[in-house]
Amino acid sequence: MIFAEIISIGDELLIGQTINTNAAWMGQLLNASGVKVARASSIADHQNAITEAVSDASQRASLVLLTGGLGPTKDDITKKTLCDYFGSQLVIDQASLDRITEFFERRGLPMLEVNRQQALVPDNCTVLHNLKGTANGMWFEKDGVVVVSMPGVPYEMEYLMTEEVMPRVAKRFQLPSIIHRTILTAGVGESFLAEKIKDWEDCLAGDQIHLAYLPSPGMVKLRMSSYGSGSEEEQKARIAAREKELLNIIGGYVFGFEKDSMSSVVAKLLRENNLTLSGAESCTGGMIAHLITSEQGSSDFYRGSMVSYSIDAKLRVLGLNESLLEEKTVYSEEVAIEMAQLARSRFDTDYAFATTGVAGPVDVDGVKVGTIWVAIAGPKGAKCQMLRLGNNRDRNILMASNAALNLIRKDFF
Amino acid sequence: MIFAEIISIGDELLIGQTINTNAAWMGQLLNASGVKVARASSIADHQNAITEAVSDASQRASLVLLTGGLGPTKDDITKKTLCDYFGSQLVIDQASLDRITEFFERRGLPMLEVNRQQALVPDNCTVLHNLKGTANGMWFEKDGVVVVSMPGVPYEMEYLMTEEVMPRVAKRFQLPSIIHRTILTAGVGESFLAEKIKDWEDCLAGDQIHLAYLPSPGMVKLRMSSYGSGSEEEQKARIAAREKELLNIIGGYVFGFEKDSMSSVVAKLLRENNLTLSGAESCTGGMIAHLITSEQGSSDFYRGSMVSYSIDAKLRVLGLNESLLEEKTVYSEEVAIEMAQLARSRFDTDYAFATTGVAGPVDVDGVKVGTIWVAIAGPKGAKCQMLRLGNNRDRNILMASNAALNLIRKDFF
Repeated sequence: MIFAEIISIGDELLIGQTINTNAAWMGQLLNASGVKVARASSIADHQNAITEAVSDASQRASLVLLTGGLGPTKDDITKKTLCDYFGSQLVIDQASLDRITEFFERRGLPMLEVNRQQALVPDNCTVLHNLKGTANGMWFEKDGVVVVSMPGVPYEMEYLMTEEVMPRVAKRFQLPSIIHRTILTAGVGESFLAEKIKDWEDCLAGDQIHLAYLPSPGMVKLRMSSYGSGSEEEQKARIAAREKELLNIIGGYVFGFEKDSMSSVVAKLLRENNLTLSGAESCTGGMIAHLITSEQGSSDFYRGSMVSYSIDAKLRVLGLNESLLEEKTVYSEEVAIEMAQLARSRFDTDYAFATTGVAGPVDVDGVKVGTIWVAIAGPKGAKCQMLRLGNNRDRNILMASNAALNLIRKDFF
Repeated sequence: MIFAEIISIGDELLIGQTINTNAAWMGQLLNASGVKVARASSIADHQNAITEAVSDASQRASLVLLTGGLGPTKDDITKKTLCDYFGSQLVIDQASLDRITEFFERRGLPMLEVNRQQALVPDNCTVLHNLKGTANGMWFEKDGVVVVSMPGVPYEMEYLMTEEVMPRVAKRFQLPSIIHRTILTAGVGESFLAEKIKDWEDCLAGDQIHLAYLPSPGMVKLRMSSYGSGSEEEQKARIAAREKELLNIIGGYVFGFEKDSMSSVVAKLLRENNLTLSGAESCTGGMIAHLITSEQGSSDFYRGSMVSYSIDAKLRVLGLNESLLEEKTVYSEEVAIEMAQLARSRFDTDYAFATTGVAGPVDVDGVKVGTIWVAIAGPKGAKCQMLRLGNNRDRNILMASNAALNLIRKDFF
């Protein structure tokens, strides 16, 4: 197993001004290629911090990948630091100088001395030519450890990783095949799930499969991982067999795989079956419509929603029956179902969803915060589910939205 | 200066399945409180990795903050690892057990042995009670270094950081008084802004005020920071004076301060003036409704929206005039304004917003992706703005939504 460490250089990461998406992107690529990322660190752009981080990482990993601190400005000191660390002399790289000159000429911008200096490279590294920008990547090797430095601009780093770094890594190291499989569940808590699949989980070790639980509001992802224990085919077969067993145990909770979302799964089902969708939202306030329309091409099946946030809008615009509202109150299963049926007929769709309840953060009219009814109306009739959630408004809105979409999904099975 | 290190535990971070937003959130809070984050690391959820990372960080920092690995399942081993590291015994914490029991009873879910075990706490730590979930935070102290462990679920971590950790950090350490002031601008690019305020910015150094530009879709935040140069009052006075100057230069672009959002500012204006709001959304697909209803108490002023995502819904449900649609097409200023006026009259509100256009990622019917019309109708009449955005669907939806809300805000001045 080849271990890698990622070091992201930049104060903006430490003060939280920039979220470190580079490390996640690199982690995905490395992991998919059979390199295990053991640690990812963000450090300040100071010489000492960089030297210490590279030195520490080199003790633990065979591959150390740095991003950031290679720009033309004063505060970018990575190249100088690495020169000192690897005992390099800086020399002009003619190909880089030509490229940088051309880069500025093409944009009609003046080329400054600081830009010229970007063509200076350490004499004991392999230059990784950056065709997306002016700062080159650098590949050093010392005591069997490979240290690669790349710019921090995401699309420049991504270019260098894909075109220059990974092909060299594949040549330089023996890489095993790593297989992951992610199974998405909804409507069941992490601990309840763990209890249900305990016996199954106990058998995974024998197949050298590692299981991870990844919870997020209203859903838990289960990820099986096999790290090079056998050929790629053997590993895939073992994981597929375990997946089949798992689906027999908790199949009812599984709504998707890999990068699916509840809205993408519902979109796919509706599109495949040539069915249309609309909705009436009260407490979710447009979130379901937003989740659906975040899917590219959702206009193929989604007609629209009524966000009826006031009693007046429910009566006059959606057309809810006033006596039903008085009899059952707005916080009821009957009103949720009636809202779904009204949306279905108003928008003339096959399916419609509806929500009503108390999103929070406090109780309303004696109804406990987090009490939310989600309903659907469709070709097979209407269904309603009452949710008892917590007092976090954002979380309740998201969980209720996904629960409503899940009702539609389940209607297909 | 107090140095901190953040350690995020979880394989999902290393394989890039989850982007580490916790570290950025914590970095912002710590930095604003006068604690300097020197390093942020993501590590695997293995005992050795955790022990080594905590031990290394304790050599360099006075405050080590861990997140993750505290869930009820088998792959969560942080608590056990910290017990070994700090030589603790696990004991039942009755308050936690009561809270967890109540948590499950309230949701009508069975409480399992794994949940009961979440009430086990090390006997030599201060328990930080997690009122947002079942896994407690733990505050250890050894050789003058504070080590805090928190769950990785963002809103649980955020609760513990705000309510439990930071107040204790402020008591335990001498923190310098750091004053920040954030001014929020919309509808103006970062470089144009920088050019406009260049002379003003040059004067900040004399006051030992540092300026940061924090761009996000459709807005740029300007943050002035003063790091302990004088008493708190002196620093505040200097920043207030500079803010006054700044507002004289770019006041027209400033929509709020600190943690304001465009929707919270609009909500405040409508509430203060006792005015009501509704909308008709096409390409933003419910996002504006969602932004508004994310504000607690928005039912005070917000009546509802029509998400009319199909031509049919625009005609039959919203009531758009068919000949106008044929003459001008759905992608036009006239239709955007008519949609706003229809929403205003259908929902009987003082203000209404509307959107139509191509969210992307590709051109539609010869209309360039990112071409979006946002309109409002209100007591002072109707207004429309055409936006020319890029081809990123999520970004376009968000930018158009905020632009529509900004039209309402500007109508008050």
